Amino acid sequence: MDIDYKDIKVIGFDADDTLWVNETYFRETEERFAELLEGYETKNKVDQELFKMEMQNLETYGYGIKGFVLSMIESALDLSNNKIPQETILEIIALGKKMISHPVELLDGVEEVLSKLENKYRLIVLTKGDLLDQERKLEKSGISKYFHHVEVLSDKKESNYRNLLEHLEIHVDEFLMIGNSLKSDVLPILNIGAKAIHVPFHTTWAHEMVNEEDEKVNNHLKLGTLKDVLKYLDN
Amino acid sequence: MDIDYKDIKVIGFDADDTLWVNETYFRETEERFAELLEGYETKNKVDQELFKMEMQNLETYGYGIKGFVLSMIESALDLSNNKIPQETILEIIALGKKMISHPVELLDGVEEVLSKLENKYRLIVLTKGDLLDQERKLEKSGISKYFHHVEVLSDKKESNYRNLLEHLEIHVDEFLMIGNSLKSDVLPILNIGAKAIHVPFHTTWAHEMVNEEDEKVNNHLKLGTLKDVLKYLDN
Repeated sequence: MDIDYKDIKVIGFDADDTLWVNETYFRETEERFAELLEGYETKNKVDQELFKMEMQNLETYGYGIKGFVLSMIESALDLSNNKIPQETILEIIALGKKMISHPVELLDGVEEVLSKLENKYRLIVLTKGDLLDQERKLEKSGISKYFHHVEVLSDKKESNYRNLLEHLEIHVDEFLMIGNSLKSDVLPILNIGAKAIHVPFHTTWAHEMVNEEDEKVNNHLKLGTLKDVLKYLDN
Repeated sequence: MDIDYKDIKVIGFDADDTLWVNETYFRETEERFAELLEGYETKNKVDQELFKMEMQNLETYGYGIKGFVLSMIESALDLSNNKIPQETILEIIALGKKMISHPVELLDGVEEVLSKLENKYRLIVLTKGDLLDQERKLEKSGISKYFHHVEVLSDKKESNYRNLLEHLEIHVDEFLMIGNSLKSDVLPILNIGAKAIHVPFHTTWAHEMVNEEDEKVNNHLKLGTLKDVLKYLDN
């Protein structure tokens, strides 16, 4: 594929599962949640019902750990017909606090990539989720020095990106987004006429999955690791 | 008091309890929470313990309804020695959802003030709390058209304001903040050298209270109602 990046001036990086590990901790917490509920339902059923609850609550709670914890509690009550011991609710709350205070693990090559690109491009972070959580992770990560701007969005739809580029006075021709989610970091970006590079993470949240047709979308690079962007961008 | 507003070009408005009612719904929910716990403790004790729990969790959860709900659940388990019925936990979750979906009630005179000031000043919203919640409230309020920019901050300390003004390229001499909280909307603003007008709301969250000495801070107007700003600012 021959995509021309010579007009790119600003690169937006997704954060969760692009710069640092995130989805893994959700999966681990879901494992633990299923264990807490094992007296009531199979792991498969618990997973399914928790996901349903999350989707049902998504419009109300939005993305992030606090909404996830509230959905786990509601799901535990629901799955157990309100029989789940009160102590288990406390354990679920503790699982959430553990997630929030988890150390930040940078993905392989992140610091190298950022330090090489920062001289040629304006780098920004574009993430969705909980404002405080994301600010805290960036601070703990030690990589905030590479970024000119950090924006936490309530969602990553075309309109969110369009408003943001307008606000930051960035022309779509100058903008490249790099992220792990086809649905959030690639498709809406291509649809507004900017460029995107897809660097998948080994785990994808079901909500971020796209259908087969969308999987076939063209006009973007798909790379195996973040470091590979250095082969395509000036540095 | 004779404060000169002639250099002001940008006015920042706090949102909760400055543009629309907020604290009242928290107070109502706390009333209902105390009723749910009345078999275990007095209303006074429940109030005290819930506030303690909120403060203990503030660094973890930040501001906003979801963290408040998680603190109510934890507090209910704590106050009842884990005896609170599971159904009551569901009721607490429902109280939170009701708060999140509550209609927005603009405070008296808001629309008049904004429509008169928008021609002379650049108006922005500076609020803290949950990103999705605050965006949603602004959308429901019907007043987003008056604002050039909306910023949801994770906190309202001097550094948050300083970073924001720098990012928006606003000089401190040109900036006036209007809000209901001495602690969040007035003191840090005066400390960074900008101007502030205090319009108290009838209810103030204990966490936003300041000590008597800070109450005596000078160099800012304290007004009885938002409409009074029209007496001091060009319109």
